[in-house]
Amino acid sequence: VNPCCYYPCQNKGVCMRVGWEDYECDCTRTGYFGINCTLPEFWTRLRVLLKPSPAVYHFILTHCKWLWDIINTTFVRDTLMKLVLTVRANLIPSPPTYNSAYGYISWESYANVSYFTRVLPPVPEDCPTPMGTSGKKQPPNPQLLAEKFLLRRQFQRDPRGTNLMFAFFAQHFTHQFFKTSGKMGPGFTKALGHGVGREVGRPPRLAPWGTGTDLARLPPLLPAAHRLWSLQLRDGEMYPPTVLEAEVHMIYPPGTPKATPTQPFPPQPGLCSLHHECQGLTHRLVHKLLLMPVTTGSAPLSLSLPPPLGETIKIVVEEYVQHLSGYFLRLKFDPELLFDVQFQYRNRIAVEFNQLYHWHGLMPDSFVIQGKEYSYQQFIYNTSMLMDYGVEALVESFSKQIAGKVGGGQSINTHLLKVAVGVIEESRLLRLQPFNEYRKRFSMKPYKSFQELTGEEEKAAALEELYGDINALEFYPGLLLEKPQPNSMFGESMVETGAPFSLKGLFGNPICSPEYWKPSTFGGAAGFEIVKTASLQKLVCRNVRRCPFVSFHVPEPSTETGTTGDHQAKNPSTEL
Amino acid sequence: VNPCCYYPCQNKGVCMRVGWEDYECDCTRTGYFGINCTLPEFWTRLRVLLKPSPAVYHFILTHCKWLWDIINTTFVRDTLMKLVLTVRANLIPSPPTYNSAYGYISWESYANVSYFTRVLPPVPEDCPTPMGTSGKKQPPNPQLLAEKFLLRRQFQRDPRGTNLMFAFFAQHFTHQFFKTSGKMGPGFTKALGHGVGREVGRPPRLAPWGTGTDLARLPPLLPAAHRLWSLQLRDGEMYPPTVLEAEVHMIYPPGTPKATPTQPFPPQPGLCSLHHECQGLTHRLVHKLLLMPVTTGSAPLSLSLPPPLGETIKIVVEEYVQHLSGYFLRLKFDPELLFDVQFQYRNRIAVEFNQLYHWHGLMPDSFVIQGKEYSYQQFIYNTSMLMDYGVEALVESFSKQIAGKVGGGQSINTHLLKVAVGVIEESRLLRLQPFNEYRKRFSMKPYKSFQELTGEEEKAAALEELYGDINALEFYPGLLLEKPQPNSMFGESMVETGAPFSLKGLFGNPICSPEYWKPSTFGGAAGFEIVKTASLQKLVCRNVRRCPFVSFHVPEPSTETGTTGDHQAKNPSTEL
Repeated sequence: VNPCCYYPCQNKGVCMRVGWEDYECDCTRTGYFGINCTLPEFWTRLRVLLKPSPAVYHFILTHCKWLWDIINTTFVRDTLMKLVLTVRANLIPSPPTYNSAYGYISWESYANVSYFTRVLPPVPEDCPTPMGTSGKKQPPNPQLLAEKFLLRRQFQRDPRGTNLMFAFFAQHFTHQFFKTSGKMGPGFTKALGHGVGREVGRPPRLAPWGTGTDLARLPPLLPAAHRLWSLQLRDGEMYPPTVLEAEVHMIYPPGTPKATPTQPFPPQPGLCSLHHECQGLTHRLVHKLLLMPVTTGSAPLSLSLPPPLGETIKIVVEEYVQHLSGYFLRLKFDPELLFDVQFQYRNRIAVEFNQLYHWHGLMPDSFVIQGKEYSYQQFIYNTSMLMDYGVEALVESFSKQIAGKVGGGQSINTHLLKVAVGVIEESRLLRLQPFNEYRKRFSMKPYKSFQELTGEEEKAAALEELYGDINALEFYPGLLLEKPQPNSMFGESMVETGAPFSLKGLFGNPICSPEYWKPSTFGGAAGFEIVKTASLQKLVCRNVRRCPFVSFHVPEPSTETGTTGDHQAKNPSTEL
Repeated sequence: VNPCCYYPCQNKGVCMRVGWEDYECDCTRTGYFGINCTLPEFWTRLRVLLKPSPAVYHFILTHCKWLWDIINTTFVRDTLMKLVLTVRANLIPSPPTYNSAYGYISWESYANVSYFTRVLPPVPEDCPTPMGTSGKKQPPNPQLLAEKFLLRRQFQRDPRGTNLMFAFFAQHFTHQFFKTSGKMGPGFTKALGHGVGREVGRPPRLAPWGTGTDLARLPPLLPAAHRLWSLQLRDGEMYPPTVLEAEVHMIYPPGTPKATPTQPFPPQPGLCSLHHECQGLTHRLVHKLLLMPVTTGSAPLSLSLPPPLGETIKIVVEEYVQHLSGYFLRLKFDPELLFDVQFQYRNRIAVEFNQLYHWHGLMPDSFVIQGKEYSYQQFIYNTSMLMDYGVEALVESFSKQIAGKVGGGQSINTHLLKVAVGVIEESRLLRLQPFNEYRKRFSMKPYKSFQELTGEEEKAAALEELYGDINALEFYPGLLLEKPQPNSMFGESMVETGAPFSLKGLFGNPICSPEYWKPSTFGGAAGFEIVKTASLQKLVCRNVRRCPFVSFHVPEPSTETGTTGDHQAKNPSTEL
C-alpha cells in the first residue's frame, strides 16, 4: 500500500514516497518536526497553548454587542481586522500548489491557470479505498445520500434572517469565478481571472451596464475588443438588450425572445441545469443594480477596470460577509491594512472553494413577488419579469422574502437536489480527500464520530452505516451535515474553510495591491471615493426612481444578531 | 497639447488627464506631494539626504577587497544581500501595471499575459513629437544611427575579462523569457511563464536532457504532454538527437541534417536573423551542460519542475550576476532572505528589460575553437561541431576566448548590427519614453547634456545634431552610448535599470516562495541540496569525462576586479 494513503503527515507536512513502501514527511516551516510532523517546536507549543479554538473566538465575536460597539469605534477594529485577514489568508497556499492532475508541486500546476487549484492534493490513485484507507471500497450512492440527508422535508427559515437578495447576490458574485469548464472537465475552469473581475480577451460582462449614463461618449475610448452592447430604454430607465438584439450565444429554451443576455457560464454537464438557469434572473437583476455613472471626466482610467469591481469587493466584505459571519466586529474593506505584511496579491480558485459554495438551501420553495407566488417552473427563464415589475419591486420583494437554512441537512428543495448530487459526483471524480483531512488542514480537530459531527444520534447512525468510518466521510456532505453553530447559517467547518478562500480572494485582487490602490486607478479622487463608500443600497438607489427596501436580510431582524442595518436608515441618494 | 506629453509628474507620480487641457498627478505613496509630486515629505527628505548615489555605492561595492573579504564571512553579507534585493525589486511594479496597449492600469494589462509589461507607459499618441515634446518631429534614421555610433571599428576586449561562455549562457538563459511574438507583434510575448522556467502546455525545453541518465524509467512517470526526445549515444556520452530524428519544426537552411533541435524562439520578423540562429549552437551546448542525473528515488517530484530551474537561478545569481556586477560583496541565492518582507512572487517580463538585454557587443569577430578560427559564416548553423569537438573542448575554448566590450558605443560586429537596428525600430513602434525618463524612474538624475552622457565631446556633438535634445535621446542608444563605469562592462544606467528586472525575475520565481522552497518540491533533501550547491563547473563536470576549464571569465583575470574564481580551483566532481 502507498503509505501516503494513510495521510501520515500532520500539521500541513507534505507526504513524499520513498521507494515503493516508505515515505517521508517534509515538515519545513510547519512549526513541527518528527517523522510525521507531530512534535511541536517551542514557539509552536506556546502558540497552540495560547490560541483560542475556533468555537471560542466565534463565541466572542458573536456576543457582547455593547463591547463591540465600543471596539468598532477605536483603532482596535483595524488591528483585529488585520489579524482576521492574515490568519485566514495564511491558510491558503500562495502561489498555489496542487491541482487535480498534480498531487505534488509542479510547474504545470503553477503556470496552467486553466486548472482550479487544490489545497489538498488528490487521494493517490493506488489507494485501497476511494478515501485512502478508511471506509468502504464502494462509496454510498450519491442520489440515495442526497435524498436521505440533503433533500428538504419542510422549509426552515434561516436563523440569521438571510433573504433572497443575499442568495441572488451570492450567485451573481460567485459565478464570476466558479465556471467549471464543460469541455475540459470538472478540474478545469473557464474563468481564468481566478477572482472577481473581468475575463481576458472577452467582451466585459459588467461594463455594458456598469459604464452607465454616458454611453455615447464611451465607445471610442474603449479598445476594440471591448464591444459594448446597446441598451434599451424603457420609461426613461436603461435595460439590458434582449437576447435577440445582443448577438450572444445563450442557452435558453426556444420561445423566450424577451430573455436578456446574461452571459452566465455555459451549461455544465454533470451539474443540474435548474440552478444555473435560474441565474438568468439573478444576473440580469444584479447587473442592473451595479449600474454606475461615469464620474471622472475625460480620463479613460475608470473604464479600464470592470467598473463595479472595487464596489463589489467593498459590498461583499462589509455587507455580505458581515451578514454571513454574524460577527459584531464591524468588518472593514481597507487594503492598506495589509501593506506592511507579507501578502501575495494573487488568487487561484480552488476546487474545494467551488465545492463548499453550493448553498442551495438558501432557495425557497416558491418566489413571492409583490404578493404573487411563483413556482420554480414559473420563475426560471422568466427574465421578462424585470420589465414587467421593474427593478424596485423585484429588489424589495427579494429583500423581504426569507431564505432557507443551509446547514444541518435536509435543506435543499427538490428542484435543486440534482446540483448536490452533482457536487458529490464531481468530488469523487476529482478524488477529494476526506472531510476530516480538511478539518485538520484548516486548523480544526478531526471529528471522532458521526455523533460528534451531527450532534444527534439518528442521522449519525444512518451515516455511519453508509460510510462505515467518520474518516471516510466526504467533504461536501460533511459541511452540510455538521451541526450549525448557534444562530448561524452553517456549521463550524463551512466558516473555517470558506472564510480563508473568500478573504484571500477578495483582498488578493490586484486592485488591493499598493501598486493599484490609488486614485488614478479609479479615474481620480472622485472615482476612488465612490469605491471607498460603496454600499448595496447606494448601488440600487442610484439607478431607480423610488428607493426600495434593499438589504441582505429581511426587515426587522432579531435584535440578538449582529446587523449592518445602521447605515440603511438614511437615504444615500442625497449623498451622491 | 496633451499635458502628459511633458511628463510633468516627478518621482513616479502618475499623470492623469483632466478634460482636454489639464492634468493631475497621483502622488500616492511616492513620498512626495504637490501638483507635480515634487515636494518631499519629511521622511523622504531625510531618506534622500542619507541615501548615497548609485555611483557612490557602486564605488564602495567595487573597492576595498580586504574589507569585503571580511564582510563576506559575517552575517552582514546576508543583511546587505537582503537590502540589495529589496531596494532593487521595489523599483519593479508588482503586480504589473502597464503594457504597450494600455498606458493606464487596466484589467487587460493585468490579466492578459500575452503582453510584455511596461514600467513606464507608452508616449501618448497625440504628442507633438515621437518622444513627447522634446526633440525633432522625425527621429534619426536607425540604420544611420547604428552605423555611426554602434558599429564596431576595432574589437575591444571586455575590461572585466568576460568570455564567450558568459555570452552564450546569457543567450541561453534570457531566451527562456524573451520571446517576442512574431504573429501578434512586438508588444507581445510567446513565453507566457514570464521568467525562468518551463512553458505551459508545451514539451519541456530543458527536460529532454535535464532529466538525464535514467531515461528508461522516466516516461511512465511523466504526464503525456511531456514528450521526451530520445537521445543519441556517441562514445558513451549522450547527445541530443538531430533535427531529422526529433520531429520538431525548426528554421534551418536546407542541407543541415545533422543540426540538433534546439527549440529556440521562432524567427522574429523585424529583428536580425543572425543573432537568433547563432542560438543553435548555444542552446544545444548549454542544454547539454545542464544535464543532471535524477537522484531522488521513486518520488516523481523532481520531475515536476524543469529540473535545472533552481540550479539555473543559483548559477545566475552567484556566478553570472556576480561576475557582471564586479561587486566584492559575495552575492547569495537564498530565498529565505525575503521571507519576512513584503515581496510578490510573480514576474512579468517588461519591454524595457527585453530592450536593454541586447548585449551583442559581447560577440567577437571570429570564434576560436582549439586554436582554429571560425568566421561567422562558418560558425552559424554549424551545430555538428558539438560532436566533432566534444563538449569539453568547446566549453574550454569558449571559456578562454574573451568577449567584446558592450558599453561605450561602436561595439557591435557588422554581422549583428541588424539586431541593434531592430531594437531601435521596435522601441519606436512601442513608443518607448525617452532615456532620461527611465533615468528618473530608476532613481537616477537625468542627464543635462550629451557631453555628460558620453563623457567626451565628439560623439556628443554628433548625437546632439541628430537628436536635437538630450531629453529626446532614446532608451537603447542611451544605454549603449553612456560612458562605462571604471572597469565595468556598461554604464551606470544599464546596471541600475537591468539589475532590478533581473533580481525581481530571479527571486520572484515561484520556487523561491515559502510555499515552494522546501525539500519535497525538489524530490527530497538530496535534490534540495543539489540546487543549493549548484555551480557552473559542477554542471559541466558532472557530464563530461575530463573536467575542462569552465568559467564566466577568461583565465587569470586582472587582480583588481572582483572574481568568483575561488571555488573553481578545486575539482567539484569529487564532491558529487
